[in-house]
Amino acid sequence: VSDPLLTLTTDFGDASPYVAAMKGVILGVNPSVRLLDLTHQIPPQNIRYADYFLASALPCFPSETLHVVVVDPGVGSERAILYAEVADQRVLAPDNGCLSSLFVRIGPPSAVRHVREPRFWRSSVSATFHGRDIFAPVAGHLSQGTDPAILGPVVTEWVTLESPAPRSVKVGIAGQVLFVDSFGNLISNIPAEMVHKRPIRLRVGGRSLSRFRWVNSYAEAKPGQLVALISSDGRLEVAVVQGSAARRLHARVGTPLVVGFGK
Amino acid sequence: VSDPLLTLTTDFGDASPYVAAMKGVILGVNPSVRLLDLTHQIPPQNIRYADYFLASALPCFPSETLHVVVVDPGVGSERAILYAEVADQRVLAPDNGCLSSLFVRIGPPSAVRHVREPRFWRSSVSATFHGRDIFAPVAGHLSQGTDPAILGPVVTEWVTLESPAPRSVKVGIAGQVLFVDSFGNLISNIPAEMVHKRPIRLRVGGRSLSRFRWVNSYAEAKPGQLVALISSDGRLEVAVVQGSAARRLHARVGTPLVVGFGK
Amino acid sequence: VSDPLLTLTTDFGDASPYVAAMKGVILGVNPSVRLLDLTHQIPPQNIRYADYFLASALPCFPSETLHVVVVDPGVGSERAILYAEVADQRVLAPDNGCLSSLFVRIGPPSAVRHVREPRFWRSSVSATFHGRDIFAPVAGHLSQGTDPAILGPVVTEWVTLESPAPRSVKVGIAGQVLFVDSFGNLISNIPAEMVHKRPIRLRVGGRSLSRFRWVNSYAEAKPGQLVALISSDGRLEVAVVQGSAARRLHARVGTPLVVGFGK
Repeated sequence: VSDPLLTLTTDFGDASPYVAAMKGVILGVNPSVRLLDLTHQIPPQNIRYADYFLASALPCFPSETLHVVVVDPGVGSERAILYAEVADQRVLAPDNGCLSSLFVRIGPPSAVRHVREPRFWRSSVSATFHGRDIFAPVAGHLSQGTDPAILGPVVTEWVTLESPAPRSVKVGIAGQVLFVDSFGNLISNIPAEMVHKRPIRLRVGGRSLSRFRWVNSYAEAKPGQLVALISSDGRLEVAVVQGSAARRLHARVGTPLVVGFGK
Repeated sequence: VSDPLLTLTTDFGDASPYVAAMKGVILGVNPSVRLLDLTHQIPPQNIRYADYFLASALPCFPSETLHVVVVDPGVGSERAILYAEVADQRVLAPDNGCLSSLFVRIGPPSAVRHVREPRFWRSSVSATFHGRDIFAPVAGHLSQGTDPAILGPVVTEWVTLESPAPRSVKVGIAGQVLFVDSFGNLISNIPAEMVHKRPIRLRVGGRSLSRFRWVNSYAEAKPGQLVALISSDGRLEVAVVQGSAARRLHARVGTPLVVGFGK
Repeated sequence: VSDPLLTLTTDFGDASPYVAAMKGVILGVNPSVRLLDLTHQIPPQNIRYADYFLASALPCFPSETLHVVVVDPGVGSERAILYAEVADQRVLAPDNGCLSSLFVRIGPPSAVRHVREPRFWRSSVSATFHGRDIFAPVAGHLSQGTDPAILGPVVTEWVTLESPAPRSVKVGIAGQVLFVDSFGNLISNIPAEMVHKRPIRLRVGGRSLSRFRWVNSYAEAKPGQLVALISSDGRLEVAVVQGSAARRLHARVGTPLVVGFGK
């Protein structure tokens, strides 16, 4: 049997000592845990970005993996900390909605609890760094087999983010950019199922795109060409082959995107 | 018993092959070591930044962890390489002052040695990459249980950075910004103990801040509001809730910061 | 015996969920594999950068390490996926030339195969994310001991990048910048063997450098000084001590560099 696996997702950046401090505390509790960085580049306090990231990445992991998420603008407030089990995965995260899309995608969660029992916390808890003082030691104990039931009471309500839903409009479907990846590809909130035939028209941010190609993969078009396709997570995507659609179209998360099918 | 734990802290950045080369060399010596990245984003040659980072992060780690630090503007010169034990941790670093605050915080170190014995080095040592050619193989051997006494002689002197000390002034305390984290929060060199009551006035970089709130955590104020608080490492901190105080106040490491208590 | 070691090199960046998804899939196949990030900061689709990176970093690793490389502008096209063994290392990469310099440096490879057998792939393969759907599960199986012979047929041809070769010119040697590291140091394609005596003149990007020093290591010159030296991978390098030669000289990969020896 392998040592337990614990992943880390934060908005701390890679240059500050905060991630390192969390790793130290976790290993101090459970020296045999296997730590895995998912990202520390969630934009600061961007719960919506974290929500997309987690729903994309976590379903790929083997069962029993423990995922620790610290994107926590409400640190020090009355916001709760959640422990949840969902499709054989285990998650520890602030109750701020960052698990909403994950729960839709592989949920619903079971055994959701508020983490309240201070016996597993660091002896002195700061008001601004619960990642080090609460999440890390609790995660260390969970990875060692501590029964989640000791952490706090089962709850049946938690914060849920409203996802911007695509809607049918006269010319086709109106949605928006949900995510911009590091290549500048625009991932929309329009699921593949709604793209029942090849789009003829595309508007991004109020600007009509005169030339684009519908492709199955980037390699079908030439470098620099604007393309529309189905993304690897099953959504309408707009991309520039070997370039950045975000830069070309001045688009970012939230930019409206309309696809038209008829002529 | 778990495999030995070895952490890496460098200023190599994440895009160059230097970190990967070090990992390869360490694993070539000790294939069972567990490598853990702390950061490779120390700003180039910034010993003071490394000093702050290490003093914040290393005390959280379990005993016997071996920390390898390569922030080394003096590579190829006569600067020594130090091996030190401090509060049950083990550190391998250039002798350039980057361990100063760590030694103050959890020290003093014991068994400090100059690493001079070439038998553990790579067969060919470049003049510009001791990280790969000396630090990595020596660390690999140390992680395997090599007796540090073989590495070189005990020394009783090493380079120490002068920390800028806060001082009492007529209106209160004058200090400076010690660290700016990825959120843009300004961590000062003024310890919580010196902030005996709530500050009434704040000057940052010669500019008097007319409106700020004293809070225990960010969540007590509204997004965009300027706040002062005690940081998670016990110092006076100036922040903008869900924003960047560094950007708002044009502040960076070294920017003067004065707090006033009376009216 | 330690658990098998598997390294990851991609151009996905550290903020997108793509790397995390790959890690999840690999661990889903082989929960005991040890994952090691080399970099995810290869510039998007930059095969030449990947080629330099891999040739610098991979030779340092212990034998039997499995290296997975996903810098794959041709994803979804007819480009093949290669499995290769070279000097006791194992590599899985798109057949786009990114292994060319590695093969020159420690090759030639043996047992090169096209990865074609879909039985090890994810059940549904997207057209744009073979990293998650093909590379990751195949790597997971390889790390578990799956015989590479099952993956697909041995091939004897693969894509090779033409490396820009330095050439002798009247005044000395004409080459170019091959790599710019995170310090802004310019690594040229001119091998140390061609620099038979100290260069007297340097032209970078058509601009003659009036003042530079020939040194063995940065520490021999003063901060801010322009220097020429032999890099840690045995090439002519131009640097600014504790500064950035790339910024000072407006140089980047491909910028011409001429060294002159006579007067």
